[in-house]
Amino acid sequence: MREFNWIEHYFLPLTNGQSSALNLKDDAALLRIENGYELVITTDTLNEQIHFLTDTPAHLIAQKALAVNLSDIAAMGAKPLAYSLALSLPQHTNDAWLKDFCDGLQIIQSAHDCYLLGGDTTRTNGPLSLSITAYATVRQGAALTRNSAIAGDTLYVTGTIGDAYLGLHALQHGHDAPELIARYHTPTPRLDAAEQLAGKASACMDVSDGLVQDCGHLARCSGVAAKIDATAIPLSDAARRYIEKHNIEIRELITGGDDYELLFSSNIEINTNLATAIGQLSSGSGVVVKDENAKPMTFAQTGYQHF
Amino acid sequence: MREFNWIEHYFLPLTNGQSSALNLKDDAALLRIENGYELVITTDTLNEQIHFLTDTPAHLIAQKALAVNLSDIAAMGAKPLAYSLALSLPQHTNDAWLKDFCDGLQIIQSAHDCYLLGGDTTRTNGPLSLSITAYATVRQGAALTRNSAIAGDTLYVTGTIGDAYLGLHALQHGHDAPELIARYHTPTPRLDAAEQLAGKASACMDVSDGLVQDCGHLARCSGVAAKIDATAIPLSDAARRYIEKHNIEIRELITGGDDYELLFSSNIEINTNLATAIGQLSSGSGVVVKDENAKPMTFAQTGYQHF
Repeated sequence: MREFNWIEHYFLPLTNGQSSALNLKDDAALLRIENGYELVITTDTLNEQIHFLTDTPAHLIAQKALAVNLSDIAAMGAKPLAYSLALSLPQHTNDAWLKDFCDGLQIIQSAHDCYLLGGDTTRTNGPLSLSITAYATVRQGAALTRNSAIAGDTLYVTGTIGDAYLGLHALQHGHDAPELIARYHTPTPRLDAAEQLAGKASACMDVSDGLVQDCGHLARCSGVAAKIDATAIPLSDAARRYIEKHNIEIRELITGGDDYELLFSSNIEINTNLATAIGQLSSGSGVVVKDENAKPMTFAQTGYQHF
Repeated sequence: MREFNWIEHYFLPLTNGQSSALNLKDDAALLRIENGYELVITTDTLNEQIHFLTDTPAHLIAQKALAVNLSDIAAMGAKPLAYSLALSLPQHTNDAWLKDFCDGLQIIQSAHDCYLLGGDTTRTNGPLSLSITAYATVRQGAALTRNSAIAGDTLYVTGTIGDAYLGLHALQHGHDAPELIARYHTPTPRLDAAEQLAGKASACMDVSDGLVQDCGHLARCSGVAAKIDATAIPLSDAARRYIEKHNIEIRELITGGDDYELLFSSNIEINTNLATAIGQLSSGSGVVVKDENAKPMTFAQTGYQHF
């Protein structure tokens, strides 16, 4: 099948018939934003071998690519609208692969109510590369950013930390850990939680590069110091079992990547169903993580290094 | 230099201090659209070896990547606003390369009044890959699309056709043709022309994959037939000299890619400074190109095949 047929067969259904996409016939899309709202725009690239293992099924690559963008949207407290897809395909890509890929996109866009707006599909002589740019709306002035945390705020995190890191570990070591592997392959963007944070969170970001490192970003951007209680960091039962069995330190979990949970600060008590308090912000700078003996932990590196 | 320093040193200046970019500190950007306008969004990917030759200077890659996106914006009759950059860099990328790359972006964004809004910079084990998603505004309902040409309209094209094709030919064969090579490396988005087309053009697109093929898209999307007079297609003096010297047929020029001129239809006489009439639209379907003897030309392929 040739490019124009691919567009019609596989990509066009993902537009949900929205007029913005102009039936993918033009080189551009046309988006109207409701008065009183502003547009949130975020881009994430996934490269084969770097961000996902070679031979990862196409639908899982697609799910992760869209989900990590929606995670950035959740972090801004915004509501997903649409996305553009830039897809660089190796020569050997066939119809079956592309169909599976688009099925993955469909799963995530259906779950979070957004649609394909446009993009570009090209060939590459290298490994698979894809970039998604996602669009969301937020009431003017209501976006959550990472630079507005206040000394005295409590630091919270949604869900559990370290599952995706352990899922990758399990994949790489051939260990049986389906729940953790699923968390690695298909992160859940915390859009539901984000909706409940309006008027509650002072600052927010998603945890993608390691909790300690990302906490450092939030603290630095806001001009505050952060103190985290390692024993308060929420772990799943599957993670507890896995780290005990394979003798993995918590240090690794909180500096590993791919959590896609929300890290936020608030001076209001947050329902424990929504998030877990893991620390406090104070005046000053830097991040200190206290271990079970209230001793500061040391880290060779605090998170995922992109370069 | 590490990622966060790269962002601060090289990318941050490209935001022009626009608050939308949130100083590139968050994972997303925040864009406000003026009431009465809609947003035009377009994505183009350039891959090393496929869309540009290996060892192309970084500033030329950057210029082309941004310019081809702005060409899509011109085709919609819109005014550039900002862009997101997804950059997948090979391991060997150094500071000097990135500085040169950002200098190239600066040249184009200064010429066309737009700024960097955000994006993602990642590593790849493959060749360089970059995707730009560009944003522009247009008055609600005023966007030019390719599906609204009308039988009886005249077909026009801006500038000259085939220069970039010949520039690539010159590069590949080591021929001396600086003007043509410059047209290949740094296309000029026809934003000035686009501004003058409001209320005049019935349909419009940019010519990027070959005049004959792109004309076919416009005709098919609009449900009309196109007749092009090959002798009317505007060629530059440099192109005329080159094809004579190297015995190249016009057939090649009008099926080669990378022109980035505007192809549009109109029932109003267009000033010859703005564009050249090259044919007519009528009821029916298909594209016929008549040669100097008024005989229909035949083509092995009508333009660049992406796959």
